[in-house]
Amino acid sequence: MPWPEKLTPAEGVLAIDNNFTIALEGYTEPRLERAALRTITRLQRQTGMLAIAPRLGKDPGAATLVIWTKGASAPVQKYNEDESYTLTVTPQKARLEAANPLGALRGFETFLELVTSGAQGFAAPCVTIEDHPRFPWRGLSLDVSRHWIPPGLVRRTIDGMAAVKMNVLHWHLSDDQGFRVESKVFPKLQEAGSEGNYYTQAQVKEIIEYARDRGIRIVPEFDIPGHTSAILAAFPELGSGPGPYTIQRGWGVFDPTLDPSKEEVYSFLDRFIGEMAGLFPDAYFHIGGDEVNGKEWKASARIQAFMKEHNLKDLAAFHQYFNQRVQKIVDKYGKIMEGWDEILAPDLPRNIVIHSWRGPKSLAQAAQLGYSGILSAGWYLDLMQPTSQHYLVDPISGDAAKLKPEEQARILGGEAAMWEEYATAENLDLKLWPRMAAIAERLWSPASVKDVDDLYRRLAVIGNHLVTLGLTHQTAPVRMAERLAPDAPVAPLLTLISAVEPVKGYARNRGGRYTSLTPLNRTVDFTPPESDASRELLNAVERSDWPAARAILTRWKGNDAVLQPILASHSLLQELQPISTNLEKTAALGLEAIDMIEAKRAPAAGWADAANSFLTEAIRPQAELLLMPVRGVQALVKRAAQ
Amino acid sequence: MPWPEKLTPAEGVLAIDNNFTIALEGYTEPRLERAALRTITRLQRQTGMLAIAPRLGKDPGAATLVIWTKGASAPVQKYNEDESYTLTVTPQKARLEAANPLGALRGFETFLELVTSGAQGFAAPCVTIEDHPRFPWRGLSLDVSRHWIPPGLVRRTIDGMAAVKMNVLHWHLSDDQGFRVESKVFPKLQEAGSEGNYYTQAQVKEIIEYARDRGIRIVPEFDIPGHTSAILAAFPELGSGPGPYTIQRGWGVFDPTLDPSKEEVYSFLDRFIGEMAGLFPDAYFHIGGDEVNGKEWKASARIQAFMKEHNLKDLAAFHQYFNQRVQKIVDKYGKIMEGWDEILAPDLPRNIVIHSWRGPKSLAQAAQLGYSGILSAGWYLDLMQPTSQHYLVDPISGDAAKLKPEEQARILGGEAAMWEEYATAENLDLKLWPRMAAIAERLWSPASVKDVDDLYRRLAVIGNHLVTLGLTHQTAPVRMAERLAPDAPVAPLLTLISAVEPVKGYARNRGGRYTSLTPLNRTVDFTPPESDASRELLNAVERSDWPAARAILTRWKGNDAVLQPILASHSLLQELQPISTNLEKTAALGLEAIDMIEAKRAPAAGWADAANSFLTEAIRPQAELLLMPVRGVQALVKRAAQ
Repeated sequence: MPWPEKLTPAEGVLAIDNNFTIALEGYTEPRLERAALRTITRLQRQTGMLAIAPRLGKDPGAATLVIWTKGASAPVQKYNEDESYTLTVTPQKARLEAANPLGALRGFETFLELVTSGAQGFAAPCVTIEDHPRFPWRGLSLDVSRHWIPPGLVRRTIDGMAAVKMNVLHWHLSDDQGFRVESKVFPKLQEAGSEGNYYTQAQVKEIIEYARDRGIRIVPEFDIPGHTSAILAAFPELGSGPGPYTIQRGWGVFDPTLDPSKEEVYSFLDRFIGEMAGLFPDAYFHIGGDEVNGKEWKASARIQAFMKEHNLKDLAAFHQYFNQRVQKIVDKYGKIMEGWDEILAPDLPRNIVIHSWRGPKSLAQAAQLGYSGILSAGWYLDLMQPTSQHYLVDPISGDAAKLKPEEQARILGGEAAMWEEYATAENLDLKLWPRMAAIAERLWSPASVKDVDDLYRRLAVIGNHLVTLGLTHQTAPVRMAERLAPDAPVAPLLTLISAVEPVKGYARNRGGRYTSLTPLNRTVDFTPPESDASRELLNAVERSDWPAARAILTRWKGNDAVLQPILASHSLLQELQPISTNLEKTAALGLEAIDMIEAKRAPAAGWADAANSFLTEAIRPQAELLLMPVRGVQALVKRAAQ
Repeated sequence: MPWPEKLTPAEGVLAIDNNFTIALEGYTEPRLERAALRTITRLQRQTGMLAIAPRLGKDPGAATLVIWTKGASAPVQKYNEDESYTLTVTPQKARLEAANPLGALRGFETFLELVTSGAQGFAAPCVTIEDHPRFPWRGLSLDVSRHWIPPGLVRRTIDGMAAVKMNVLHWHLSDDQGFRVESKVFPKLQEAGSEGNYYTQAQVKEIIEYARDRGIRIVPEFDIPGHTSAILAAFPELGSGPGPYTIQRGWGVFDPTLDPSKEEVYSFLDRFIGEMAGLFPDAYFHIGGDEVNGKEWKASARIQAFMKEHNLKDLAAFHQYFNQRVQKIVDKYGKIMEGWDEILAPDLPRNIVIHSWRGPKSLAQAAQLGYSGILSAGWYLDLMQPTSQHYLVDPISGDAAKLKPEEQARILGGEAAMWEEYATAENLDLKLWPRMAAIAERLWSPASVKDVDDLYRRLAVIGNHLVTLGLTHQTAPVRMAERLAPDAPVAPLLTLISAVEPVKGYARNRGGRYTSLTPLNRTVDFTPPESDASRELLNAVERSDWPAARAILTRWKGNDAVLQPILASHSLLQELQPISTNLEKTAALGLEAIDMIEAKRAPAAGWADAANSFLTEAIRPQAELLLMPVRGVQALVKRAAQ
């Protein structure tokens, strides 16, 4: 994953052993050499053949994998650079060709995915691959404001992104809950706005280099004029309200907003954007622009007077006035402005990029107006939706599908988004991976690649592959579960977790119980977004595969008896007691239903009604978890009752 | 673990929440402050309360944990420094007192072990602990020559050692298979002897500082005059034979040996030991001295003439002559010599330390002669013996138990040993942990603490605790298993692995199939040393707990049907096919036997004989694995037949 544009299988395999070597031909550069050495290290890890020599071969004739590139990549990676490559694997050797090192980086990842343990030991199957991406902009929007994500984890995330051929890390560095980058011009920003959790400029530079080495651009976002509580904590005089301002602890849309009527706001932004434009080499600069609630603007007599004086008829026009002024500053420092879809208005220059979070409609609208756009709507990984749902979202669909080709070409791709209300350094990986691979595939592979069963089959494989990079999506749930009952066996708790999913959408945000200080160490925090077993149960029922359905249900049966004493003696697990009881009863009902179906025996009177009324209750959220096998068992009960 | 010398439980708990703080009183130093900050970071990880402020409190009155130390530790940690501490936990706060920062380091670890998730959330139980170690020398001897252990893994090992209150890392830096430290005086050593896998002096210094921060001494070992193939690859002129010499690829005892009759050997050693004595601050310097096979010495006419001339009656006397000369050099550079028990002879000064690998007898002998000694015999973790066996080894036992008190006092403690023929950076953790805790407890806790059932119960808990330090003993087997069949579910393979153990002792070394280049990526390489489930099965049978025995056997039943297709399609797993078949049959036999026992029904004629002859075959090693449930099922068959 992502599936290549063109793949032609051939007979045989290329065996991987201790003698594996890589040699470079044609144009080369240190970045390419580092990538080749990294490929060797990763092969060592993928195979356990630690004796593979960690150095480049001198003789392409003798090398296992030969790389040929034609010329250099751009000094600063461009959004539309050539990323194509061809990879040919024969029983004797593999050859990777690309126009530039960027394409070679993509090809290395494909080669590494091909190497697997199979019927002939560790080997890559013989194949010819011609590959290039469908969209040039394939990214992740990563919020590091709401919870702190340390530099090492940013690098690990970049590793994963590179493995699935993504090419943009959109770094959401500033929001109401924190300002996360060192400013040397305005050190008060990190002093008052970060509680010590910020990236130094040296760390930022290291991460940018790390990303470039992996063919990933870094686009910084400093969200203005809303989402600025952390900035205003440092500089209250830039706010639209009377202040004082503090960084926010809660979640949601807050009132604090920069005051577009104040000239000092623009002189601050001029110096600040100037500094950051120097720090971040990418051509694009994201100014946010979303979710301005306008309360401070409405409440300020001064702002109201300013609007009247400047003939700005409403708050949208006032916001637009601000965006125009900011765009001139961004432009002055040689950058192209990008912003969330609220900034879309016909009076901005056509080179800006509209980032759609509200839906595909604004993307089509922008394209018609001549703006470039990228999609994030439908790809919010923090909302714990099924991967299949994200997978089937296509930037060229709905209104966009009806656009003229030259308008469609303005849709550059998209970004998965990870907002961090409930994500921390501990559970980020399990929320991102392997699901990001599905979005990466949508953005890289032909639109016709969209079989959901095949997606899930390959997702499990890429999930294992990504583990070899050090991503913790598989281990974090185990570790976090062990922590809640370190004196008990963890297996029964993991069995329960295999049957549940976190509540979806914004369900956790209701009631305002959570703040940035709330420990995210409960079961819901380490439960993966999808219960694979529950999905497989439903699939098995749909294809009337009773042995498969029975096998899945049997895994859950009997777990409650073992688990209840553990739950009872650990207060942080007590909230799971009713769920465990319900899982037991749900599994029992499912097995009963299969017995009846297989025996062609009708249920007793009232059995189905009783079952259904129990199941309707059992699917309700408890401990912010959903008991997913209910869906499959509901289908079983229906079949048994027929 | 290790269990404290004196523990008095009290009512109640000290709750851990976001407001947790540490304050220092009395003497303090940067090392202690770093340890306190590390304790906070570890508490964050143990609890998931990431909002605990990562800074020291100013006000001891308000702090959750107050540390008081009387004065400084020695600038270079001494082997017999005071490591005692007292820790009092009340519902309001905890207080840790120690004579010096070293004792406080030990107390921090105890506090961290006390904090656990229980009936009242994350909390430490109220308790008073007065603690100090039984033996002053509690270490791990770590071979980094046979397989390379990178610096990060050495640091991780130090973390684990500190957690179980060990205080010496004996770093086996040179052997036939590699010379692993940078020499600036003789760079040829690492150039010809390491294949690029060596620690730079900067890395060594970092590791020494890292270890000091955690109260761990580092004793380097450069093994001479045998085990010197890597040194002789650089300087063949120092050898006893004609050369040429190369680093060894195989395992065992090799002929290459320094030539004690050559004066240039001593001038080399003088400069080399001088350099290393400056690099390693510890008072002790380990010269190895083991396994000199004498073949080169016997074959050399020149050496034979030298021996005659110097009146050295045999090879032992010749070796002793060498040791005496080396001891003078070690002494000249201000160090105390340590060596394996072969160096024991009454003509060396009494301050040297004898390191017993051959058995407790030499330890007693050394003590009687006035030498200090430490034990490693019985604690070879590479031999895959049960933890209980290591646990019951006591340095003061056998001949040593009969020594006079002043002689016993010369027995300073001991070191677990990890030889790396079959250990790599990938599987080291799973061979070391949590078993090291058992040896650490033997060396720290009162001799009376030796209940094996209690050991295993607590070992599971400390195993989870050690995971929070980043040790990979739990995750490495899963990752290595996934790698061998990344396209299949891993659970069935892990179920099989839960029933097997690697072959014991030197069984893998037979036949010379292995070299340092052989990939250690087969199932035996990631199978933990002990099958907990098999031991629990045997225990359940012994106490006639049929439901427990049945539950364990049921977990294995039916696995073969799922696993066989996976094994068949992955060539590196095919060797497991007969084991999986045998596990299925063994589990079935066990369940049959329980049915008979519970029904008080006699088996059919010949049933027990057939079962026993199958089981006798099934316990034989296959794929270098032992099918451990056989023991429990043999006991069941016996009970059924009665």
